[in-house]
Amino acid sequence: MSASSKPFVLYTGPTPNGHKVSVLLEELKAVYGNAVDYEVFRIDISTNVQKEPWFIKLNPNGRIPVLTDKSRNNFNVFETAAILLYLEHHYDKEKRFTFEDPDELSEQLQWMFFAHGGVGPMQGQSNHFQRAAPEDIPYAKNRYVEETKRLYGVLEIRLSGRDYLVGSGKGKYSVADINVLPWVRIHKYAAIESLDEWPNVKAWVARALERPTFQAGIAVP
Amino acid sequence: MSASSKPFVLYTGPTPNGHKVSVLLEELKAVYGNAVDYEVFRIDISTNVQKEPWFIKLNPNGRIPVLTDKSRNNFNVFETAAILLYLEHHYDKEKRFTFEDPDELSEQLQWMFFAHGGVGPMQGQSNHFQRAAPEDIPYAKNRYVEETKRLYGVLEIRLSGRDYLVGSGKGKYSVADINVLPWVRIHKYAAIESLDEWPNVKAWVARALERPTFQAGIAVP
Repeated sequence: MSASSKPFVLYTGPTPNGHKVSVLLEELKAVYGNAVDYEVFRIDISTNVQKEPWFIKLNPNGRIPVLTDKSRNNFNVFETAAILLYLEHHYDKEKRFTFEDPDELSEQLQWMFFAHGGVGPMQGQSNHFQRAAPEDIPYAKNRYVEETKRLYGVLEIRLSGRDYLVGSGKGKYSVADINVLPWVRIHKYAAIESLDEWPNVKAWVARALERPTFQAGIAVP
Repeated sequence: MSASSKPFVLYTGPTPNGHKVSVLLEELKAVYGNAVDYEVFRIDISTNVQKEPWFIKLNPNGRIPVLTDKSRNNFNVFETAAILLYLEHHYDKEKRFTFEDPDELSEQLQWMFFAHGGVGPMQGQSNHFQRAAPEDIPYAKNRYVEETKRLYGVLEIRLSGRDYLVGSGKGKYSVADINVLPWVRIHKYAAIESLDEWPNVKAWVARALERPTFQAGIAVP
């Protein structure tokens, strides 16, 4: 890591959890410029560097991503959704990617916790039993692919008549979306070949992929 | 459900996720009295009533608990951690169970997301393969009990020299603790017979169980 005047260091890797944060940083950069620029410190999770003592000091859970805010006394933030909310609290002065109304803010949190406790961990288990587990275990493969599909069905209900998860009318692109889109985007890794069963979800992913900022975020590191 | 002047309806069952909310409601009641009293609508999840259309309107994810706030135009909140933060936002005027400092608020969110994406889903999977799965699958049993133990180890690191997860000095009992204690309390269901390996965690659970309000919360419904 070189000395840098960029305010943030993002410890990350090319995973959906990493991409949640890099997408928001790219969105914020497009609005606010260098004030929210970030240096990428690539963590190769295959070498378990994230379990080394220096990293455990940043995140006792030993997971990427972690954000260090040099402009606020090197404050560290772990857990993807907490990082998104930290960035919104301090750096999105115009509230471009969040809300001011308390009911909309609560709905944003509801959908963020839904994704963080549901889509992320369950799709992650599906990936594991499809691709990483040393044994072929049909019961577990089926359990997690079916649960992931069920959760996509919940998103499908929510996105009926809406462009985005939260906000009046058709909704507004916000951290509620950014918090889950990078997972749904890689549905194929969880043995879900297409999103055709969930047309609203499919259109929502396509809408995000049209954003150059979203594309830039999912290309990090 | 009878007509009632109590401001909240809590749709819940006797599970750790239900208890997270009933514990906070009991804590708030002890401070603020009837202004935060609640009616319990018991959901028997074994009958799948939580998948019926009337319930899906309250929570498209079909899960308990859900909170309806009659004093705010029947606003519905789902996802346990989002309910805790909703109650804190609107009803804990003295900030007894949360923080005002933005860094402490961020740490509160970090530990809430850690529990919501880690302890809850992983311990839940451990429960499933120990007690509910129709097949005996040693690989999955071992995977989830080991992951739950690893997560308790993260809590153990955090609780070193602290009484509670967040706050200066030894910390302050807050929604960060309430959001995860009801899970750790029932570790035996996940085939973790004792907390002796994690003495800080063990003392923290014992500390919570000394609170009559915590005891009242885990007795609901």
